Amino acid sequence: MKISIIGASGYTGAELLRVLHHHKKAEIKYLTSETNAGASVSSIYPHLAEIYKQNFVDMKTVVKNADESDVIFVALPHGHAMSVGKELAKNKVKIIDLGADYRFADSAVYEAWYKIPHTHKDAGAIYGLPELYADKIKNAKILANPGCYTTASILALTPLLKAGLVQTENIIVDAASGVSGAGRALKLSSHFSEVYENFSAYGVTNHRHTPEIEEHLSAAAGTEIKISFTPHLAPIVRGILATCYANLKPNVKPEDIAAAYDIYKGKPFVRVLGLGASPATKNVRGSNYIDIGWHIDKRLNRVVVLSALDNLVKGASGQAVQNMNLMFGLDEKTGLDDVPLYP
Amino acid sequence: MKISIIGASGYTGAELLRVLHHHKKAEIKYLTSETNAGASVSSIYPHLAEIYKQNFVDMKTVVKNADESDVIFVALPHGHAMSVGKELAKNKVKIIDLGADYRFADSAVYEAWYKIPHTHKDAGAIYGLPELYADKIKNAKILANPGCYTTASILALTPLLKAGLVQTENIIVDAASGVSGAGRALKLSSHFSEVYENFSAYGVTNHRHTPEIEEHLSAAAGTEIKISFTPHLAPIVRGILATCYANLKPNVKPEDIAAAYDIYKGKPFVRVLGLGASPATKNVRGSNYIDIGWHIDKRLNRVVVLSALDNLVKGASGQAVQNMNLMFGLDEKTGLDDVPLYP
Amino acid sequence: MKISIIGASGYTGAELLRVLHHHKKAEIKYLTSETNAGASVSSIYPHLAEIYKQNFVDMKTVVKNADESDVIFVALPHGHAMSVGKELAKNKVKIIDLGADYRFADSAVYEAWYKIPHTHKDAGAIYGLPELYADKIKNAKILANPGCYTTASILALTPLLKAGLVQTENIIVDAASGVSGAGRALKLSSHFSEVYENFSAYGVTNHRHTPEIEEHLSAAAGTEIKISFTPHLAPIVRGILATCYANLKPNVKPEDIAAAYDIYKGKPFVRVLGLGASPATKNVRGSNYIDIGWHIDKRLNRVVVLSALDNLVKGASGQAVQNMNLMFGLDEKTGLDDVPLYP
Amino acid sequence: MKISIIGASGYTGAELLRVLHHHKKAEIKYLTSETNAGASVSSIYPHLAEIYKQNFVDMKTVVKNADESDVIFVALPHGHAMSVGKELAKNKVKIIDLGADYRFADSAVYEAWYKIPHTHKDAGAIYGLPELYADKIKNAKILANPGCYTTASILALTPLLKAGLVQTENIIVDAASGVSGAGRALKLSSHFSEVYENFSAYGVTNHRHTPEIEEHLSAAAGTEIKISFTPHLAPIVRGILATCYANLKPNVKPEDIAAAYDIYKGKPFVRVLGLGASPATKNVRGSNYIDIGWHIDKRLNRVVVLSALDNLVKGASGQAVQNMNLMFGLDEKTGLDDVPLYP
Repeated sequence: MKISIIGASGYTGAELLRVLHHHKKAEIKYLTSETNAGASVSSIYPHLAEIYKQNFVDMKTVVKNADESDVIFVALPHGHAMSVGKELAKNKVKIIDLGADYRFADSAVYEAWYKIPHTHKDAGAIYGLPELYADKIKNAKILANPGCYTTASILALTPLLKAGLVQTENIIVDAASGVSGAGRALKLSSHFSEVYENFSAYGVTNHRHTPEIEEHLSAAAGTEIKISFTPHLAPIVRGILATCYANLKPNVKPEDIAAAYDIYKGKPFVRVLGLGASPATKNVRGSNYIDIGWHIDKRLNRVVVLSALDNLVKGASGQAVQNMNLMFGLDEKTGLDDVPLYP
Repeated sequence: MKISIIGASGYTGAELLRVLHHHKKAEIKYLTSETNAGASVSSIYPHLAEIYKQNFVDMKTVVKNADESDVIFVALPHGHAMSVGKELAKNKVKIIDLGADYRFADSAVYEAWYKIPHTHKDAGAIYGLPELYADKIKNAKILANPGCYTTASILALTPLLKAGLVQTENIIVDAASGVSGAGRALKLSSHFSEVYENFSAYGVTNHRHTPEIEEHLSAAAGTEIKISFTPHLAPIVRGILATCYANLKPNVKPEDIAAAYDIYKGKPFVRVLGLGASPATKNVRGSNYIDIGWHIDKRLNRVVVLSALDNLVKGASGQAVQNMNLMFGLDEKTGLDDVPLYP
Repeated sequence: MKISIIGASGYTGAELLRVLHHHKKAEIKYLTSETNAGASVSSIYPHLAEIYKQNFVDMKTVVKNADESDVIFVALPHGHAMSVGKELAKNKVKIIDLGADYRFADSAVYEAWYKIPHTHKDAGAIYGLPELYADKIKNAKILANPGCYTTASILALTPLLKAGLVQTENIIVDAASGVSGAGRALKLSSHFSEVYENFSAYGVTNHRHTPEIEEHLSAAAGTEIKISFTPHLAPIVRGILATCYANLKPNVKPEDIAAAYDIYKGKPFVRVLGLGASPATKNVRGSNYIDIGWHIDKRLNRVVVLSALDNLVKGASGQAVQNMNLMFGLDEKTGLDDVPLYP
Repeated sequence: MKISIIGASGYTGAELLRVLHHHKKAEIKYLTSETNAGASVSSIYPHLAEIYKQNFVDMKTVVKNADESDVIFVALPHGHAMSVGKELAKNKVKIIDLGADYRFADSAVYEAWYKIPHTHKDAGAIYGLPELYADKIKNAKILANPGCYTTASILALTPLLKAGLVQTENIIVDAASGVSGAGRALKLSSHFSEVYENFSAYGVTNHRHTPEIEEHLSAAAGTEIKISFTPHLAPIVRGILATCYANLKPNVKPEDIAAAYDIYKGKPFVRVLGLGASPATKNVRGSNYIDIGWHIDKRLNRVVVLSALDNLVKGASGQAVQNMNLMFGLDEKTGLDDVPLYP
């Protein structure tokens, strides 16, 4: 399987390279970087020395030779993927976009939250959350890989909503992310001296992952759901923890909740830790796992669900490879059996 | 003013010494440490070399000579303070307890959450949140210094409840703390390799600061309030960020909210950052400030209030000195004008 | 190949489990933990949930059934390995000790630096630095896996000494290690609040890796060498960086130095980055690589060699598996092709 | 005393504001920032909210009105200070430059290492290391505040060289710095995800603090000294630890070494911890202290001296205020009695 990566010099691109190194079917064809075209991969990412010996090329080369790749991962800032995607879609190559451009069923939602016009509305992209949409993913031509916060939130809450155990009002997702989620581009909010020994919220009431989470929670519940979503910046590199609050309907029992999470039986990357468990980002770091646990507050008849994943793996590049596996008829787990790096 | 500290070898004890060094009226009389009695302060805390030249003594010495001190700070694990407090209360010395023993108006609440009998029920202790209870604090004989999460939560939400702007159901406090809040005692959950590059929740639905927060929010609201409180462990040493959710009553306007926070006008340690602000723990580190900002979610008619403080200063030792100042008729700010240590 | 691990509940034990998961020939037989015997692996290490489903047993079980294992890794504090090693050596099982007990050719050196008598002097153990001693390792019955600082130091300096390019006086190794090197046992020097935002030296002039480094540098040079070795504690979990200073002999040219490092040609885990390169611990984290670069100070006719490795992989468990591969006639790289986890 | 700061929006500028807040004689006149002129201090540095209410102005304003300030601190990148310094020197205002422009007695050394022409050669600047040069500092018109690594290295080694106890060959300074030393300007090497959980060297054999250290060690020894100096980037914000190696002359006794450090008796910011002590950056963080300890390696007749300071305080802004105090006839300690922030 010949694989190219557009935008390979960002963190999700580098992480794709890490993950794909263990993938027995993967062969890297092109890696693009507009700013580093011509440079060797290892000159930009010394940790890949001796492992990847390619040089970066520019994006045009890949687009022009689209048929030399079986699948192209696109790891570009939002707004850029849809224009290259539109071009690539004319070929037989499959496209996996790690950004936001293809994530919304209704492009008006995209335009409202991302403040730019959508230029590839008829893409027919499939939303790539394998634990929920594996059947559709298998036939995807253009796949929209979900956001990191989104994956953590949707997988945490969907079982309760599908099973009708919680009220659809007053759902709150309070989450923290590592700094790698903000990418490799330089900004003061990713500057070491600002982030280290610091903890703060950002994007309060208006983070762009909100409508993405809402779309899929609504689908699970069968009714429109609006949530509070508050992301925080934790002084770590990798990891997302989502702490999700929902009011239980009357007379819901602990066993009902446990049963709801049985939808993940047979899903290799969801570790359901169960009642009373507190997932930790370090327990999943470097792996494609998402760990889920929950707590019942009897005083308030409320459930608190916690989920942890590595934003660069299950929240981005690992999930993208998981989707690729499904799209090409491979075992979902191929290349994804890394043990979390602990401690 | 002669000051002794019982339990001076823990982090809050050391922090009292840091804060008091700038206090022009303070003179240290006794510092106790059961495990380090006889040792010099600087042998246990080398950062205090040349600044404090005393040796630690044992607790008995202080209790026996209680009248040599004008005020005694007690920084012991809960359960221990009330027995020494009962003894000390026979003397004219004033007592400031940094632990939980004297924090609850109703000792049954203490016993229910701390699982031990209360042995000093008639202490008549005053709850030391100066921004709310300064008048009572001035006459306190035994002062209960509030918890760190508690201070952050109560000061964030009280204005909205006092002004009757929010509904009293569905209040959620989601907070993160630095590791110093867990003290200097060794435990796996404070072990560097476990905490670094990690983020997780703990005490979900059952943390002991919950009833303390509820008592004072209920007082502000004039009706019983129960909240969800979820603490998280952030891989930082100092700092608490509380993210608080409450549903607005109908037709509440942004100006109403801003006006509610006017109760902090003239309160030197509350920096009201206002609508749209995101406090950060680093902005208050090493200082006695609490920074408060809020966001209004029009889609949900909900307010998200954020507060940040240094758990060892405004969340413990700084607030204790602020209380001491009030109890002895000094300017509240005496010794507390440290600029936050940034970056 | 049936593998048991004695002392599997420490960090090097857990890391062996991580590394061996990718090893296609490995089958875990017994995992021991005296303090956690009977407990499941995932109850102690939640990151291993779903991956390892065994329970820990006690050490006796493994010793009694020594012939059920082809190889036993021993990850015990020094002093303990030699007694169990003596017992195990009666069987045909091969032994790989990750501690210090078998590392010294001269047990008097061990006794002088570790201050305890050596009780298994005739063990005939082989020192397991595969890049230097592969031939001997292939026939080892008891293998002494080198220390973490030791591996970094010896591999950095050996080429220069073997080639006779540097003077043997005034060699200095100044190194920093992550905190995981101190293990999972609780101590103040591994307490998060003490280590975070801190940097300090320890073991100055008397660290026990000193004689181990000296033994092998002396072998390379063909003359006795004594060095200054100063370890530092860096506030990271994984990683060792060794900064090594040596005075060049007159008229040594840059090409001579580069040629000396050619001894690592064909050694898959040594990445020779060459003149002017600065290895970083993050570039090797989670992998079995050691990166080596050097700088020539013409003003002083001195060379500064830098090496970086992950103390738990190439500095412990990864190297142990590399040794196991050699001892069992497998490709040295089996199970060890993890890409460094970056960022 | 009216004080202005040119380049006040960088970290050393912000740190000057922190330190000066406690200085009873200080009154801030102008704060400049070219990029933030017109903005309030607290909009750029929220931690200073309520403490500093000024706005930044541009540099021209200060230069034009130079006589409104008694002293002007210049915190600009090297190369910029000398042009503004030349202009300011025409007035009676005293100038304290925190950069490199005025640090070298021989401007040819500056030009060789900084690769730009020196345009203010007749400045007559005084090198501001108060523990060594207090007498000259008292009369300085233009003061060159020393570098951070430089202060740590010179104060560590000067006593041994002055006393003639060590050989002048083979002196090595191996040091690590926090990231704040690289300032607030964005660069990949200060990007959180790159630095966190990482440790590496930089500027090996060619860091610009080398000649500055050498100049003053040579002065102490009375003979020319050249050293190896290797800086490392530690993943902390504040702090420098210097580990310094020197060969003892024959028959030097421990008492001789201790006696050499008596030159710091009465120097309030040097804490001589003595033989066997290991200074830690956390013990001095946020304070103007430098802690010094040493170890004697009898096997090699070598001494290892360690020093720790906060690069933004004793390594920059605190030392600058200490110099200001001397220049204006104040007690050296004025405004500088902060207790280190620990933990």
